[in-house]
Amino acid sequence: MSVVTEGRTLTAKGAATRARIVAVAARLVYENGVAGTSLEQVRDAAGISNSQLYHYFDDKQALVRAVIRHNTEAVLGADDASVTRLDSFVALEAWRDAVVANQRRQHGVGGCPLGSLVGELADVDDSARRELDESFRRWSDAIAVGLTSMRERGLLRADADPARLALAVLASLQGGLVLTQTRHSPEPLEVALDGAIALIRSHAT
Amino acid sequence: MSVVTEGRTLTAKGAATRARIVAVAARLVYENGVAGTSLEQVRDAAGISNSQLYHYFDDKQALVRAVIRHNTEAVLGADDASVTRLDSFVALEAWRDAVVANQRRQHGVGGCPLGSLVGELADVDDSARRELDESFRRWSDAIAVGLTSMRERGLLRADADPARLALAVLASLQGGLVLTQTRHSPEPLEVALDGAIALIRSHAT
Repeated sequence: MSVVTEGRTLTAKGAATRARIVAVAARLVYENGVAGTSLEQVRDAAGISNSQLYHYFDDKQALVRAVIRHNTEAVLGADDASVTRLDSFVALEAWRDAVVANQRRQHGVGGCPLGSLVGELADVDDSARRELDESFRRWSDAIAVGLTSMRERGLLRADADPARLALAVLASLQGGLVLTQTRHSPEPLEVALDGAIALIRSHAT
Repeated sequence: MSVVTEGRTLTAKGAATRARIVAVAARLVYENGVAGTSLEQVRDAAGISNSQLYHYFDDKQALVRAVIRHNTEAVLGADDASVTRLDSFVALEAWRDAVVANQRRQHGVGGCPLGSLVGELADVDDSARRELDESFRRWSDAIAVGLTSMRERGLLRADADPARLALAVLASLQGGLVLTQTRHSPEPLEVALDGAIALIRSHAT
């Protein structure tokens, strides 16, 4: 059994090792930022050798891209961000409550696993920037699926634009997380998401 | 003539030198991030000695706090962010057009001089986090001043909450900038600010 990842053919065991390295790197990057995470730290924390590390990743940029993809799957697959099911006002409000509760649990520390990387990476690593852009596009597309369903089912007026509303929701989420991470309080996120839901509601039939 | 800055009494010449160092540091941090900017680079770019640098700043954290204050004055004083005058829908739309045009000119590069520092600093430098929090509070307070005036003049209903609306506007701006910096396009920012203004408009009389 083999798995093709990023142009490399890996055995099942190799794929598992690679996944473990990426998970370790994602944790270190979340805690210390990209600049604050060295390949040596990833190697030591994953308990592997240099040659193993370079067997899977050409360089730090390649590992960072893998971390972004890993975080994207985590965000889009998380229970509290099950954006594909945001197809009613009840679902939207439950989602808001879940992401706010999550921030309350972690006292506003950490920010978005994707958004918190933008300031550090977007202008200095174009491959990371494009990877993050792809992740945000998938994210807003997923939000738009639910809003499109709401429009089709007559919950939103015909003039509601699901793609634009989804982008506005994602912006409110990202900005709310920036302010919540700065204030160490979930309040700004809650206010931002309340605003986003009120915006959607202003298009209700 | 002397100036007291951060507990240090400086001559006018000293204050000018300090301001020059901070401006150089702010530019380097904006281009390369905090981790990507060393005190040695700031020293060399400002054309000063180590002893001069340490005369004004105890350490890198102190310089970073000064950069945040410098960027706060730049943001709150900028023509296109003259938030204290956001006291009508015409003013809000002109502000949106100005900040979007600004991002269009710079092709979405750079992000917010304050917001783009959050991901890198908030969880690893608590003094910087508190400085950024103070800046965002001043920013949303300034936006709230205009919205309060709109409510007093009967443009917004009595049930409009200027403080909450201002925080939602700031979140939309910050999140819009995160997405615009990632996409290298002003579009997400424009959609986010359109959403914020529509939210305010939903409270119009």
